[in-house]
Amino acid sequence: MTDFSVTKSMFHLPEGVIYLDGNSLGPLPRAACDHVSGMMRAEWGDLLISGWNKAGWMALATEIGDRIAGLIGAEPGHVVMGDTLSIKVYQALAAAIDLNPARKVILSDNGNFPTDLYMAEGLIRSLDNGHELCTVNPSEIMDKIDDSVAVLMLTEVDYRTGRRHDMQALSKKARDFGVITIWDLAHSAGALPVDLAGCGADFAVGCSYKYLNGGPGSPAFIYVAPRHADTVRPALSGWLGHEAPFAFDLDYRPGKGIERMRVGTPPVIALKSLESALDIWDGIDIDSLRKKSIELSDLFIAEVESRCPALTLASPRDGKERGSQVSFRFSEGYAAMQALIANGVIGDFRAPDIMRFGITPLYIDAGDIIAAAMAIENVITNGLWDNPRYKIRASVT
Amino acid sequence: MTDFSVTKSMFHLPEGVIYLDGNSLGPLPRAACDHVSGMMRAEWGDLLISGWNKAGWMALATEIGDRIAGLIGAEPGHVVMGDTLSIKVYQALAAAIDLNPARKVILSDNGNFPTDLYMAEGLIRSLDNGHELCTVNPSEIMDKIDDSVAVLMLTEVDYRTGRRHDMQALSKKARDFGVITIWDLAHSAGALPVDLAGCGADFAVGCSYKYLNGGPGSPAFIYVAPRHADTVRPALSGWLGHEAPFAFDLDYRPGKGIERMRVGTPPVIALKSLESALDIWDGIDIDSLRKKSIELSDLFIAEVESRCPALTLASPRDGKERGSQVSFRFSEGYAAMQALIANGVIGDFRAPDIMRFGITPLYIDAGDIIAAAMAIENVITNGLWDNPRYKIRASVT
Repeated sequence: MTDFSVTKSMFHLPEGVIYLDGNSLGPLPRAACDHVSGMMRAEWGDLLISGWNKAGWMALATEIGDRIAGLIGAEPGHVVMGDTLSIKVYQALAAAIDLNPARKVILSDNGNFPTDLYMAEGLIRSLDNGHELCTVNPSEIMDKIDDSVAVLMLTEVDYRTGRRHDMQALSKKARDFGVITIWDLAHSAGALPVDLAGCGADFAVGCSYKYLNGGPGSPAFIYVAPRHADTVRPALSGWLGHEAPFAFDLDYRPGKGIERMRVGTPPVIALKSLESALDIWDGIDIDSLRKKSIELSDLFIAEVESRCPALTLASPRDGKERGSQVSFRFSEGYAAMQALIANGVIGDFRAPDIMRFGITPLYIDAGDIIAAAMAIENVITNGLWDNPRYKIRASVT
Repeated sequence: MTDFSVTKSMFHLPEGVIYLDGNSLGPLPRAACDHVSGMMRAEWGDLLISGWNKAGWMALATEIGDRIAGLIGAEPGHVVMGDTLSIKVYQALAAAIDLNPARKVILSDNGNFPTDLYMAEGLIRSLDNGHELCTVNPSEIMDKIDDSVAVLMLTEVDYRTGRRHDMQALSKKARDFGVITIWDLAHSAGALPVDLAGCGADFAVGCSYKYLNGGPGSPAFIYVAPRHADTVRPALSGWLGHEAPFAFDLDYRPGKGIERMRVGTPPVIALKSLESALDIWDGIDIDSLRKKSIELSDLFIAEVESRCPALTLASPRDGKERGSQVSFRFSEGYAAMQALIANGVIGDFRAPDIMRFGITPLYIDAGDIIAAAMAIENVITNGLWDNPRYKIRASVT
């Protein structure tokens, strides 16, 4: 049973701030600064080039991948870190298309995170081979799976509303119809239990700077099911995915299994920051985390609804159908979120009218939830949002 | 006039070590640890998500790009950081192929770094549109440029021998024949003056962990000539290359100019390390650096040749035809390099028989060069390499 008061003490949380945006960028693990600067001094500084071997830098991408595998129900040895989520989507989709050459439809939904759709668009355009990105409403996905579909590419949890797909059922239908699946776990990894192996997923991708707390721009991960790992031919065939990178052969030969999904030189400093964050995860029972997340989210919904009738719940009311966030609609949501941030509660805003709150039991407790709901009440009922300075849009939110 | 004794003091160089491998991984700038951990504490820790705006994280990729632009003769506003060199090669090549749709030949040489060729191979295979990677000897490139060639993709400085292409002349002939050029500046940026604009180069890419000293796995850069910047259609069309990333539109619209070559969320921690490294570069006159590099390299060649007749120079003897490294061939080169490292001089080995030494005036002086040559003499003439423990190959060298 995880003691969440202990995990909370492992994060640096600024005084006077309740942080409900860990679904966008997780907070700083207290140990991360020293871990990173220690690596920079003792490894980069003193070992120089030999750090690749002596400090194990070269193995970090798969070692850390294995730790994440444990959080997403992946078989050990089938997850590797690197690049960004966008690049990993491209890799997975290119490989998935290759596995289903006779079909041309890539099925996704309009609740998918835009970069997944953008990367698909770019790939389809490059291939110029008659592929088509078919984007429907999330609720229509199940019906649209048939034997014309090559690839089903979905984000399990909607980044705006927190609506959760039934990954097990969708994966099963996809398998029955010979459809290759790609699951984007950006809002799942570290948020809820995922069972990639049990679902029979073909590919999965995700980022590590949200619920996993790896730091801004922390590397992405990719999973390839064991049955494909030694047969997929990487489109992004970089030297670190080569069978023998340091032989410097002129021809590409894919490496063994998940190694072939590596591309370029791994980002060691960023991986070290992530390593610190995963030290916290080592002690976590993901089922207790999920239970706590649903409890806190239900409490948040109850508190906000009773205090602020002007806000409309945008997330599913049933905890099982949500990820680990709660969103409300409010016509002046942008200004209200700015006012709320000025009052010490950090969430974020997604157009056109969504106020989004990440519920992260590792460092958010019931006291925080109630205090946040009171702050929202203050902003809404006292009209604090109706202030010109809260209506100026920043470039990034 | 740059004072290189001052720049040398800005690096952490382990006691008793002469580091001649900065062409593989530059050493730690003394200021980098504090700069990175300061960012982690004061920005990530305290600003949390608002760091993207308030700490300027989102602008880092182009701000740092501009600082590198100054070192490679690129027009300001036409270089952006991100991903790895392999990914940037793919982006550049996909865009270059698009600009020359009627031609099918990608011309490169067998002195190119393998990942460039691997990425080209992967792209050509995905496109499946009759493209062909034609890889010739470096000396044959000039003759092979004709109006059948779509793209000329070269690394200016050979990673093994340091042999330097005549970028000006090759770019001119390419332009005359309607060939699009991609220059890989991995061993050029921070090593010698580059004049991308003056050469009329179309694309350039490079990494920042060698001569620029950004740290292991530090991000890559890409340059797109102003004449193409607003017309190329990115193959890797990620959300940060979108015209309005935070509008979360479902359709991709490329951003303005070089912004469209961004892909995913930028690696902020790694960019901060690189920022520290570039603070040192701000004071450097690249022409004095080049002059010093040739002086030191000539001295190194003279000292090693006079002391070790068993070693054969693998680099061009004329400094103008070399990058900023000197390589020697020795049949037992691998073991000799291990023995040399054990004796405090760090270079590296490239198969089959190349002992490679990076000559980096920022932190290597004439005293180091002579001491290194004496250590090589000791290893070679006393046969220190002839020891079983130096013959065991490490996985990464």
